[in-house]
Amino acid sequence: MAVYTRLGAEEMAGIIAAFDVGTLTSAKGIAEGVSNSNWLIETEQDGPDGQKRPRRFILTMFESRTEIADLPFFLDLLDHLAEHGAPVARTMHDCEGASHRLHRTPDGDKALALIEFLPGVSVSEPTPEQARAVGGALAQIHLAAANFPASRANSLALPAWQQLLADCGREGLESIHPELGRIVERELALLAARWPADLPRGVIHADLFPDNVLMLGDKVTGLIDFYFACTDLFAYDVAVTHAAWCFSSDGARFDPALSTALLEGYCAVRPLSKAEQAALPLLARGAAVRFLATRAYDWLNTPADALVTPKDPMAFARRLEFYANPENARTFVDGVSA
Amino acid sequence: MAVYTRLGAEEMAGIIAAFDVGTLTSAKGIAEGVSNSNWLIETEQDGPDGQKRPRRFILTMFESRTEIADLPFFLDLLDHLAEHGAPVARTMHDCEGASHRLHRTPDGDKALALIEFLPGVSVSEPTPEQARAVGGALAQIHLAAANFPASRANSLALPAWQQLLADCGREGLESIHPELGRIVERELALLAARWPADLPRGVIHADLFPDNVLMLGDKVTGLIDFYFACTDLFAYDVAVTHAAWCFSSDGARFDPALSTALLEGYCAVRPLSKAEQAALPLLARGAAVRFLATRAYDWLNTPADALVTPKDPMAFARRLEFYANPENARTFVDGVSA
Repeated sequence: MAVYTRLGAEEMAGIIAAFDVGTLTSAKGIAEGVSNSNWLIETEQDGPDGQKRPRRFILTMFESRTEIADLPFFLDLLDHLAEHGAPVARTMHDCEGASHRLHRTPDGDKALALIEFLPGVSVSEPTPEQARAVGGALAQIHLAAANFPASRANSLALPAWQQLLADCGREGLESIHPELGRIVERELALLAARWPADLPRGVIHADLFPDNVLMLGDKVTGLIDFYFACTDLFAYDVAVTHAAWCFSSDGARFDPALSTALLEGYCAVRPLSKAEQAALPLLARGAAVRFLATRAYDWLNTPADALVTPKDPMAFARRLEFYANPENARTFVDGVSA
Repeated sequence: MAVYTRLGAEEMAGIIAAFDVGTLTSAKGIAEGVSNSNWLIETEQDGPDGQKRPRRFILTMFESRTEIADLPFFLDLLDHLAEHGAPVARTMHDCEGASHRLHRTPDGDKALALIEFLPGVSVSEPTPEQARAVGGALAQIHLAAANFPASRANSLALPAWQQLLADCGREGLESIHPELGRIVERELALLAARWPADLPRGVIHADLFPDNVLMLGDKVTGLIDFYFACTDLFAYDVAVTHAAWCFSSDGARFDPALSTALLEGYCAVRPLSKAEQAALPLLARGAAVRFLATRAYDWLNTPADALVTPKDPMAFARRLEFYANPENARTFVDGVSA
């Protein structure tokens, strides 16, 4: 939660004037996004009937962690998905047709994008019907992205997990939990030996936690925060979403009803192949290791007096142990065979 | 800028349901307020014509620094000022008529208030016409609050400045600037000897910086953040607003055009008496000492590695030196004699 760059009202009005979206009437910095600054923007624009109508947008300023070189991929992807009917916010292009602009700040040039505002709230205690809708929306973006021409490597795939966990060190991992070094060694060996290469792939979201889904009741109104989107296995994205939605946040409680509903919802839109189904338990172990790796790294590298509390890596170690138990592999059967 | 308490969507929907304002459709934590958590809330409500209409509010959760005992003063004041036509956001009362509610959180019960959303942006480079409008709006709240029945002592008046600056210590002040200990001693002695007691008093805002004023063009659409409001001299509030609006933020440049416009704008709505005019230079020295005191205290008591950078106390030491120069006392003459 942050607004890293201060923009005065005059500066903001100048930024908004570069888009054909009316006159700025309100701008509130919002506490969303870990590495970007975001504002909720309101404008007033003359409609075709001469009546003024209010419009709303999210203005995102990309701070150092999002590479400007990757922005065309992310922003063109939003446009592509929205055009193909997926519940995704459209990028507003400026008067010259550009999807993002550079803005001079005291810390150097930063990229800005103006993105459609979508209604909806992020649930924290999903119901099965909500999980079903999320499964369907995930399948929808996998299908909608099928003919998207660009690609982007997954910078948080197995080699990155290996590197992050090596940087933590066995001692570091054991300082988090005495068993964690052993568990990580076992999983990394297994994943390196068995990670599938020949499953269907395309653009995936790769971070579809409840925070990144806007809902009204049981309906998905928007999938947001595509800044981990990349080209990888569709079934891995299903596994990430499963790990994100089907457990209590500390990972201690698995909810079979959410699991079944999420997978049924996905398969109703894009059925998983036999090979994908068979791979799901292993991919879910990979998904758990991916979040365990970044969280363990942040846990060990965040100063004790930082204002941001790092998230507990053990929440994903618990999910990992759940997925690693062969008796739980059948968890995935109910949803995909429906 | 902060959201200190996390509220899930279900919890938020429950909070909003206690008010007769429709169904929650969006909630974004906003990066405003130093000591409270704030969300921009959107609801959808059936209008008299059966058409759904969107409504917007600010939900504020009062974290520890705002005493719950003071809330009725602040919230009733907003209602009173709005009823009397001042540009102030109204408090929404809940279905039982209460202006605030207690909400159970893991950190204990916290008070919540739902406040009308006002359009407008905060300027950072005001024009004279904007300063004139702000002067007028300040006078408007002074007049509108005249028959407000409650009162609240100013907890940041002279005794608090003395205490804060004593806590800084002469050495502490001199670590900020070699001259600061001497300047503070001189000013505190003068203010204690000459602070006026018999000028017109009533409810004042006491913190009307540009951040706390929403504007559209040259028009004030809202005065916000009344959480320093208290009963004190009207002319002292004029002096605070003068110090807040008429200098570059580092205090190095005084802008006579802003000063004249601000004072003219105020006097056009509420003329200052001869005694108030005569006291302005001294009150302005007090206003500068008030912000110097809190900033110096925060400067010396913020850990070096905190994420929040304390604001520079010298920005108000420079204003203080400006006001202490007798040649600048005539600064105030142009505006009030117009």
